[in-house]
Amino acid sequence: MDQSDLQAPTWQLSERARKLTSSAIREILKVTERPEVISFAGGLPSPATFPAEEMREASDRILRDSPAAALQYSATEGYMPLREWIAARYSNNSAVNGVQIRPSQVLITTGSQQALDLLGKVLVCPDSPVLVETPTYLGALQSFSMYEPRYVQVATDDNGLIPEALTPELTAGARLLYAQPNFQNPTGRRLPLERRRALAAMAQTAPFPIIEDDPYGALDYAGEPLPTMLSMAPNHIVHLGSFSKVLAPGLRIGYIIAPEELHFKLVQAKQATDLHTPSFTQRIVHEVIKDGFLDTHIPTIRALYRDQCAAMLSALERFMPQGVSWNRPEGGMFVWVTLPAHIDSMKLLEESVAQNVAFVPGGPFYANEPQHNTLRLSFVTVPPAKIDEGVARLAALIRARV
Amino acid sequence: MDQSDLQAPTWQLSERARKLTSSAIREILKVTERPEVISFAGGLPSPATFPAEEMREASDRILRDSPAAALQYSATEGYMPLREWIAARYSNNSAVNGVQIRPSQVLITTGSQQALDLLGKVLVCPDSPVLVETPTYLGALQSFSMYEPRYVQVATDDNGLIPEALTPELTAGARLLYAQPNFQNPTGRRLPLERRRALAAMAQTAPFPIIEDDPYGALDYAGEPLPTMLSMAPNHIVHLGSFSKVLAPGLRIGYIIAPEELHFKLVQAKQATDLHTPSFTQRIVHEVIKDGFLDTHIPTIRALYRDQCAAMLSALERFMPQGVSWNRPEGGMFVWVTLPAHIDSMKLLEESVAQNVAFVPGGPFYANEPQHNTLRLSFVTVPPAKIDEGVARLAALIRARV
Repeated sequence: MDQSDLQAPTWQLSERARKLTSSAIREILKVTERPEVISFAGGLPSPATFPAEEMREASDRILRDSPAAALQYSATEGYMPLREWIAARYSNNSAVNGVQIRPSQVLITTGSQQALDLLGKVLVCPDSPVLVETPTYLGALQSFSMYEPRYVQVATDDNGLIPEALTPELTAGARLLYAQPNFQNPTGRRLPLERRRALAAMAQTAPFPIIEDDPYGALDYAGEPLPTMLSMAPNHIVHLGSFSKVLAPGLRIGYIIAPEELHFKLVQAKQATDLHTPSFTQRIVHEVIKDGFLDTHIPTIRALYRDQCAAMLSALERFMPQGVSWNRPEGGMFVWVTLPAHIDSMKLLEESVAQNVAFVPGGPFYANEPQHNTLRLSFVTVPPAKIDEGVARLAALIRARV
Repeated sequence: MDQSDLQAPTWQLSERARKLTSSAIREILKVTERPEVISFAGGLPSPATFPAEEMREASDRILRDSPAAALQYSATEGYMPLREWIAARYSNNSAVNGVQIRPSQVLITTGSQQALDLLGKVLVCPDSPVLVETPTYLGALQSFSMYEPRYVQVATDDNGLIPEALTPELTAGARLLYAQPNFQNPTGRRLPLERRRALAAMAQTAPFPIIEDDPYGALDYAGEPLPTMLSMAPNHIVHLGSFSKVLAPGLRIGYIIAPEELHFKLVQAKQATDLHTPSFTQRIVHEVIKDGFLDTHIPTIRALYRDQCAAMLSALERFMPQGVSWNRPEGGMFVWVTLPAHIDSMKLLEESVAQNVAFVPGGPFYANEPQHNTLRLSFVTVPPAKIDEGVARLAALIRARV
């Protein structure tokens, strides 16, 4: 190595890369890895719910019985028995008679995040309008932003997206509408049945796809899921699912169910992106779930999260001062808190982290015009006693500012 | 589902997606999955080289000892012990004294293919020039094309890329130079030491990065690797590596070694793309290799491929008619064959597949101005007796056209 190697390179980056900036929140939240921090920030599923023993047995069987196939390159579309399982699951679970989802509609992705990246790749051009909820999932904004869209916010209320807000003026030229109807990240809201019907009807004639992102659908505490929009318009809704919240996120197995024509483009884009999702992890998921495991496993996750959600709602009730409001989720992993208008949750976070309590400020979840007096609390990784303690400390900080 | 759902949707796709077309070759090669076909087409490593038993034991230990961490979300940068192992490996193996690769330069990717996608994302804008070898790796063309570059071909000879061809006129405005110095896919060529030195020197001042993609570097049959360009300019070369060819491709574990500033942008792009590569498969790779496994394992792969390469070269020598030429690889997985100028290898493929022999025509490996009288033969998945038979049949078809 000669001296000239010591000078740092100056290379021209793409326009999209130049727009990437370091996240202030990410920097602050780095400290939440310290064990003394009570973190309501992470969207991390509780490790208590990971079926480690079942996965160990599945890994063992796969590497004994079919090592060559499990360790070799494989089809971009995904492992066929897993695609068939997913198609059958959606066909059987449908609330509408006669709906059949075909395995040829299913593409396995490296987590749901990759599904968002592929949809951005295939649908979004620079400056093309992308419709999102207000607020919306931060990870979706990150994915789509790589393709430089112009975001258009769709109005919401306590029940989520308002279909009537999707006027021809608002949706003109849109490339997609992105929505999380079940226990949305960050608000925890669930879209009511009538609104799902209205959106599904719209999907059948709209010149753009409606993306139904559904990582939390199975986590309704009462075990009474609402029908998906996919079940109402199986040839027009693009549905995203994931095993991250019902098995384990570290395997990175998600999927897209889409009409075949779009599916084919997504497959080509995925081939250029990572060839295929690991063969081994796809087979582990299939091996664990194929004989009905989720039917007994999911209720245990629901029960755990229901109890922790109740603990958080109870703590909020007891400790928060007047002027602070929040929703009461029927499922999922998050509570959405609105502070008095003059309190900026980003500044609150700095104080809060100094007191060893973390959360995610609401601002970054807005595509445009952020509401800075909002924040997201996750209750899934913190045990109830700690939830009480954390909420009490946070409430004291807010009370000092009210 | 009502009747209006039966009408197929008409959605506007992105410009890049509209350019994606079905590959004629891919369609023809689908038949190579039939067991009677002798396929020289695949770049599939021999499953005989997969350390299935070691991976089974590693999976078992990981899911017994640290299931929560192995199955949870994890850092976008990758599993730190694996990043440290990679950095140490490159620091120790360097042919130049004093070169240190830092773990902070290493990003774990979902296969090397993802490294190409991320580099495209971070470096390439529509119509910006991208320099590639003539011919070059097809998968890299697929990845970069998603970001709509203008390809500029760099002249090559039997030793690979010619550094003198990189004139200021040719490289003006370039965003990157993509090269495979070791046993290039598709040609099997190895770049000589002097040319590596010339490119590494150029990298230290060039306004664009030189990408050294090195999936086959460990597979030199004599076990006498040439130094990487990374070792000559560790702060300016962007180096891609992979465990696909030395362990197993189905785990999809690759990596990028890059200067920290570019590394940081790549990490942000990866977060938007798939959050992180599966925690479990990263840990399996680390668990298998951490105590020196590759030092005994790689020589067995080299020996196997060396013998199969010799079998193919011998068969070509005995069966091919005059006017057909090919190279004699010193490593890797491929032989590159040049036919008489009037023979189109794409048409030959159709006939050949009808005779149950498959290969990949050379045309798609050229970014511009394809040479249609070339083809790529892989010898790694076919046993020697079958190599003889397949080459004999292929030679007969060519002889009929000479």
